Amino acid sequence: MDTVLRSQSKTVVIGAGQPFCIIGERINPTGRKVFQAQLQKGDLQQIEIDVAEQLAGGADVLDVNVGDPLADEVGLMGQAIPLVQGLTDLPLCIDSSIIEALEAGLAAYEGKALVNSVTGEDERLQTILPIVARYGAAVIGLANDDEIRMEPKERLEIARKIVSAAGDFGIPPEDVVIDPLAMPIGAQPLAVTSFIATLELLREELGVNTTCGASNTSFAMPSRHALGATFLAIAQSHGLTSAIMDARSLQCVDAVRASDLLLGRDEWGATWIRRYREQKAAAAAS
Amino acid sequence: MDTVLRSQSKTVVIGAGQPFCIIGERINPTGRKVFQAQLQKGDLQQIEIDVAEQLAGGADVLDVNVGDPLADEVGLMGQAIPLVQGLTDLPLCIDSSIIEALEAGLAAYEGKALVNSVTGEDERLQTILPIVARYGAAVIGLANDDEIRMEPKERLEIARKIVSAAGDFGIPPEDVVIDPLAMPIGAQPLAVTSFIATLELLREELGVNTTCGASNTSFAMPSRHALGATFLAIAQSHGLTSAIMDARSLQCVDAVRASDLLLGRDEWGATWIRRYREQKAAAAAS
Repeated sequence: MDTVLRSQSKTVVIGAGQPFCIIGERINPTGRKVFQAQLQKGDLQQIEIDVAEQLAGGADVLDVNVGDPLADEVGLMGQAIPLVQGLTDLPLCIDSSIIEALEAGLAAYEGKALVNSVTGEDERLQTILPIVARYGAAVIGLANDDEIRMEPKERLEIARKIVSAAGDFGIPPEDVVIDPLAMPIGAQPLAVTSFIATLELLREELGVNTTCGASNTSFAMPSRHALGATFLAIAQSHGLTSAIMDARSLQCVDAVRASDLLLGRDEWGATWIRRYREQKAAAAAS
Repeated sequence: MDTVLRSQSKTVVIGAGQPFCIIGERINPTGRKVFQAQLQKGDLQQIEIDVAEQLAGGADVLDVNVGDPLADEVGLMGQAIPLVQGLTDLPLCIDSSIIEALEAGLAAYEGKALVNSVTGEDERLQTILPIVARYGAAVIGLANDDEIRMEPKERLEIARKIVSAAGDFGIPPEDVVIDPLAMPIGAQPLAVTSFIATLELLREELGVNTTCGASNTSFAMPSRHALGATFLAIAQSHGLTSAIMDARSLQCVDAVRASDLLLGRDEWGATWIRRYREQKAAAAAS
């Protein structure tokens, strides 16, 4: 099942037979005090740097989140989307917990966006899915409702509910990308085994594409890049088809592209070898 | 099923519920001209450096191979084993294609060794297994016979034959560690998917422990450490319980220990955090 995203001029396909889709997560003020203060003043200039860094790192799609409780998020999203589309032709993932901000982003977006996100809660499904349908977008469905479930079968049932509700609004299953919930391994020893089991259930039962906030796994642990890279390799080999991740992490992007090669999505290593040559050329030039 | 290896004073257990077992591969003249020339002169002094480096990198077991067509391999193995046992208390893996060298190594070894290796060929089974049984050792069984099979079910059947033949000589299944054959991804695009499928069959059908020559996968490709690390993470998550690998590769050892944490074999990350602190202390001291 292929999820097709589009910008003005570029198409990106998420699917089990495709190279893994890296959704660059950096355009997000979480944990960034300077960026938060800028957003509160309506200043979006940081975005240019963030876009350039995610592009250089090899992102396939960019997540755009301008949420700050003290900022005019709806207005900012309406400005940020055309700003980013002027800087890159990558498709975008419009990321907000505020429905009006999602709508402002979709109204401003040219192409077929990914919306981040809806949960399995009825009220969220009933308000967000009609907007996703109206703009012909795809949507990330988080496999939780009003609580976090650890049991893979419960997560599967929430995913099934989201796919079904999406269908009621005319959104096909290939336009629902399920997030099985990547949680911190330091807080929950079953975080990854439960994640893997959910991935396998989703693949077998629903066949949908999947994503996650990959850096959550290593939260509060040392050597986060090594841990994140290992998580991405494992998750991809058990069926994960995309991740929201920081494309600035060479180790994490390497793990994704190495997994593409090892799992048969980069035959003869054409991309792997090109990446190596580009890295070598960049190192020689610096 | 647990494979228990022992030196004079130390026990190492290979098993699905255990941290991954790193079998340090460096004591091996393959591709090392200087070491080859030394072995031809009966000079074993390089081994002291190799042992120290594999220990520093975090090996759990050391593979010892002194094979060179122009050297007295049988005599060298008889000397190398006590030499290595004088340098470390890690259990050893006695590695040779020459039966007399395996026997010389086993005769000199104190503890319960791992023998590397036997294939599914009748003549090899009938000559090597009696020696393994006589010394109460464990043995690596390569899932090939006179040819390399790509079909996972064929590899499984060869593994089944090895486990059965071992049983005929009184060697229990827990003392047979199957190598599903890690082949270069640059030469065979199905190398890793076939490897994973074989691992899963071995786990389900035989329940035996598994190992492989992990660096084979990245042979002739650029960025070998990143590729090897990704391979190890993927393989471990699909059931691989040990690997013959170069413990000097920080990236590969990190991938193994990160997988331990993510897959629930290092609860709360005690080993992961200790490793990080040791690395930080070592960096500060240098």
